[in-house]
Amino acid sequence: MNKSKKEERRLGEIAEHVEGVLVGDPSIKIKGVAGIEDAQTGDLTFLANPKYAGFLETSSASAVIVGRETKTEGIKISLIKHPNPYLAFAKAVELFFETKRTYPEAVHPTAVLGEEVRVERGVYVGPNAVVEKGAWLKRGSTILAGSFIGTNSTVGENSFLYPNVTIREDVEIGNDVIIHSGTVIGSDGFGYAKEKGVHHKIPQVGGVRIEEGVEIGANVTIDRAVLGVTRIGRGTKIDNLVQIGHNVDIGENCIIVAQVGIGGSTKVGNDSILAGQVGLVGHIKIGNRVVIGAQSGVTKDIPDDSTVFGYPAREIHKTKRIEAHLSRMDLYVERLKELEKMLKEMKNPSH
Amino acid sequence: MNKSKKEERRLGEIAEHVEGVLVGDPSIKIKGVAGIEDAQTGDLTFLANPKYAGFLETSSASAVIVGRETKTEGIKISLIKHPNPYLAFAKAVELFFETKRTYPEAVHPTAVLGEEVRVERGVYVGPNAVVEKGAWLKRGSTILAGSFIGTNSTVGENSFLYPNVTIREDVEIGNDVIIHSGTVIGSDGFGYAKEKGVHHKIPQVGGVRIEEGVEIGANVTIDRAVLGVTRIGRGTKIDNLVQIGHNVDIGENCIIVAQVGIGGSTKVGNDSILAGQVGLVGHIKIGNRVVIGAQSGVTKDIPDDSTVFGYPAREIHKTKRIEAHLSRMDLYVERLKELEKMLKEMKNPSH
Amino acid sequence: MNKSKKEERRLGEIAEHVEGVLVGDPSIKIKGVAGIEDAQTGDLTFLANPKYAGFLETSSASAVIVGRETKTEGIKISLIKHPNPYLAFAKAVELFFETKRTYPEAVHPTAVLGEEVRVERGVYVGPNAVVEKGAWLKRGSTILAGSFIGTNSTVGENSFLYPNVTIREDVEIGNDVIIHSGTVIGSDGFGYAKEKGVHHKIPQVGGVRIEEGVEIGANVTIDRAVLGVTRIGRGTKIDNLVQIGHNVDIGENCIIVAQVGIGGSTKVGNDSILAGQVGLVGHIKIGNRVVIGAQSGVTKDIPDDSTVFGYPAREIHKTKRIEAHLSRMDLYVERLKELEKMLKEMKNPSH
Repeated sequence: MNKSKKEERRLGEIAEHVEGVLVGDPSIKIKGVAGIEDAQTGDLTFLANPKYAGFLETSSASAVIVGRETKTEGIKISLIKHPNPYLAFAKAVELFFETKRTYPEAVHPTAVLGEEVRVERGVYVGPNAVVEKGAWLKRGSTILAGSFIGTNSTVGENSFLYPNVTIREDVEIGNDVIIHSGTVIGSDGFGYAKEKGVHHKIPQVGGVRIEEGVEIGANVTIDRAVLGVTRIGRGTKIDNLVQIGHNVDIGENCIIVAQVGIGGSTKVGNDSILAGQVGLVGHIKIGNRVVIGAQSGVTKDIPDDSTVFGYPAREIHKTKRIEAHLSRMDLYVERLKELEKMLKEMKNPSH
Repeated sequence: MNKSKKEERRLGEIAEHVEGVLVGDPSIKIKGVAGIEDAQTGDLTFLANPKYAGFLETSSASAVIVGRETKTEGIKISLIKHPNPYLAFAKAVELFFETKRTYPEAVHPTAVLGEEVRVERGVYVGPNAVVEKGAWLKRGSTILAGSFIGTNSTVGENSFLYPNVTIREDVEIGNDVIIHSGTVIGSDGFGYAKEKGVHHKIPQVGGVRIEEGVEIGANVTIDRAVLGVTRIGRGTKIDNLVQIGHNVDIGENCIIVAQVGIGGSTKVGNDSILAGQVGLVGHIKIGNRVVIGAQSGVTKDIPDDSTVFGYPAREIHKTKRIEAHLSRMDLYVERLKELEKMLKEMKNPSH
Repeated sequence: MNKSKKEERRLGEIAEHVEGVLVGDPSIKIKGVAGIEDAQTGDLTFLANPKYAGFLETSSASAVIVGRETKTEGIKISLIKHPNPYLAFAKAVELFFETKRTYPEAVHPTAVLGEEVRVERGVYVGPNAVVEKGAWLKRGSTILAGSFIGTNSTVGENSFLYPNVTIREDVEIGNDVIIHSGTVIGSDGFGYAKEKGVHHKIPQVGGVRIEEGVEIGANVTIDRAVLGVTRIGRGTKIDNLVQIGHNVDIGENCIIVAQVGIGGSTKVGNDSILAGQVGLVGHIKIGNRVVIGAQSGVTKDIPDDSTVFGYPAREIHKTKRIEAHLSRMDLYVERLKELEKMLKEMKNPSH
């Protein structure tokens, strides 16, 4: 991984591979890919964020992947035009780097496997990994060094666990899932009943289900359900240091950015986006295609197709209006004083 | 753990076990417990959060545990009435699930124990765990796979450390403590003295004391004191991804929800509740029985029995009033404009 | 570590060691150091935070390190005056405690080292640590139990990794770096290209560079770059549970407090301070010597030498004015009503 293949490619070949439209010389030799700020002669770069468009004029790159509608008059670099330049770039990277690290079928001699562990074909279990009794590692799955798989848990086909991941018992991980280091799945939910001033633990006897194609970042925590399951829906992507409470249900193809916290039993629909450090209280329902701005605090249900922002979260245009008012508070108070002065003068004209 | 005992119970027997009042047929057979949204015929469920009361009418559950004062006219399901339905539910769960996982007295052959480690009766040390010189594992304590116990640290009786926990040196963990995976206790506090533009590390030579009955979630960090100890008081419960700075002192029976951060040397009294993502600056004092709303930012001492909320945190009714004012800002500005217009007209009636 | 040397020192000797000015009896025997609230007879303590000045009058300490300009009339305790009392205290601690734990040159027999790993002189690799193929552990570096060093990564001279750290492949760690437990460096950045409703992973083929003298707290996550490197500049100190996105570039001697989150490609200059729980969106530029108050949310570039605060972050005096206005909202609305009433009366004098 991250290892350059050290092969040159012709620009025409790359354009074909990424299914883009070449505007330039197909015979140009490309030696590698680089970010738009760093690219040198021989590099292919890309422009996905218009914020960096200015670099197009000064870049030494030999070619750049751009969006179909990007303005490119006066740009001397060869172009590959593509409706989704970020995706095209991803495909180009695969030509130059080993993007998937593969391990041989093997269980490292220092790994510890309990009784009745099912290890299918093509599985790799790394040094000092521990797999408890009754766990099931499906075809082609990879469990790297120091990771732990608890009793009766399942790791799906071609799923990949980085070093030092902890999967507790009775967790079901689907196929093609990626889990980064330090992440804990299936920790007990946070539930206590108070009696006579003391918090009594509510047994957390449910499980967790991570569906197909999910990716989970580093040092994430996903609690097991009190009963039933905590679910992360198919294709959802979770960034680092996110907290998912017990019995949370997250739909498909959501994006959950770093340090988000989701309280117990909250439901998030499909295709929703939670920006960084957002907090959702427990027991609420977020709809489909909802966008929640960074650091927002959400305490109420949010209907489908809403964009909310703020603390407390409101519809984004409302929050923006309030912010604008706040910026003008000095002025408003000045105007209030002026009125008071004028009225006073009108009542007491002699002053 | 999480394994159903697969035994049926009669409803009368359950009511007796949880010390509740049965309203219904004691001979009904109960096969399991389930959440109120999922419960089917044969299941016992519970209603602790009034938000879900509507499910009482549509649930297929065979019985439900409810609060003593819950309105139940027209509900056809058999009831167990209890003053604390969440607690009664916890007790019922124990009839159907193995809620405590037990390990044999053993030190796994792959565990690494330093010199002079004291291992008392009934202790389990899992695969690849590491216990350094001079540590003391008291009776019945459990240290699961990959966990680390540093020099001179103590793990109290019947305390339970999940896989991949890190306890640094000179940390004292009391009896009946539960620590979830990925948590780090005794990391260095964050202290530097700046001189000539460079930050010089202040040695962090104190310890940490976790008192009896504390539970600590996954991927929590609790720093060791610069001098003296960082203390988590008896019976306090800490959720995932919480940060506790050096020399923090937390009282007894507090609830600290996920992603809270507490700055160095801050004190929190007994029976206080910090909701999710709250931040407390260092060197302040939070009283007893204080409640701090989610995402609040606290920069000042908070007296006993206060409920505060907001960024910055104010008494909750003040924050609520401010939020209400903010929602009406458009209106206020409209009224201000109207006054200005009226006054202008009064001064210049010809217009 | 954290082990008292159990030696007595004379106060005069200590004053000399810390290069402070003694005001008192140089022959006083000092047995240890303690915080100002806990110090007893025989202890040296220090006063760095003026908040604790009141303790000077009641402390039982035998001596106290104070700032040069601290008011000390009427204080009976012997003093060591120093322009930087916190730094002087750090030096004093070294007289009484073993502040640096040292390990012998050794690779523990349970550690697993891949092929072509370079292990220089004075290196310690602890139990169950895993070092992959091609990694390079430079002179005097320490890798404690359960830590993982990925392929082709480098750990610099005298750098110290606490237990259960994960360093992924192609990460370069400079000299004299300290990394606390549970931290993950080099996890994949969070990047996807959406097509037909599905998020396609952008390969993250860059690396991470941690420069000389950096300290990184517990359970931190630092993502590898998509291309190029994510960089933490020389002498920067990072607290626990911080998230650093891909391609972030942090300058030298910054202070980044716990639970901060920094979005991808954002740049932070030198000597800047980010207080706890701050969030920076991606693709912005924070200048040199910038101070960002706790929990602030920053969405725009911040010029050099600014102090900003709030959600959204504004110049601190603006945020403070807005907060003051908010506290007076009841009053403003009252004044608005009063004006409306007066105007109404003026227009309709008969009422």
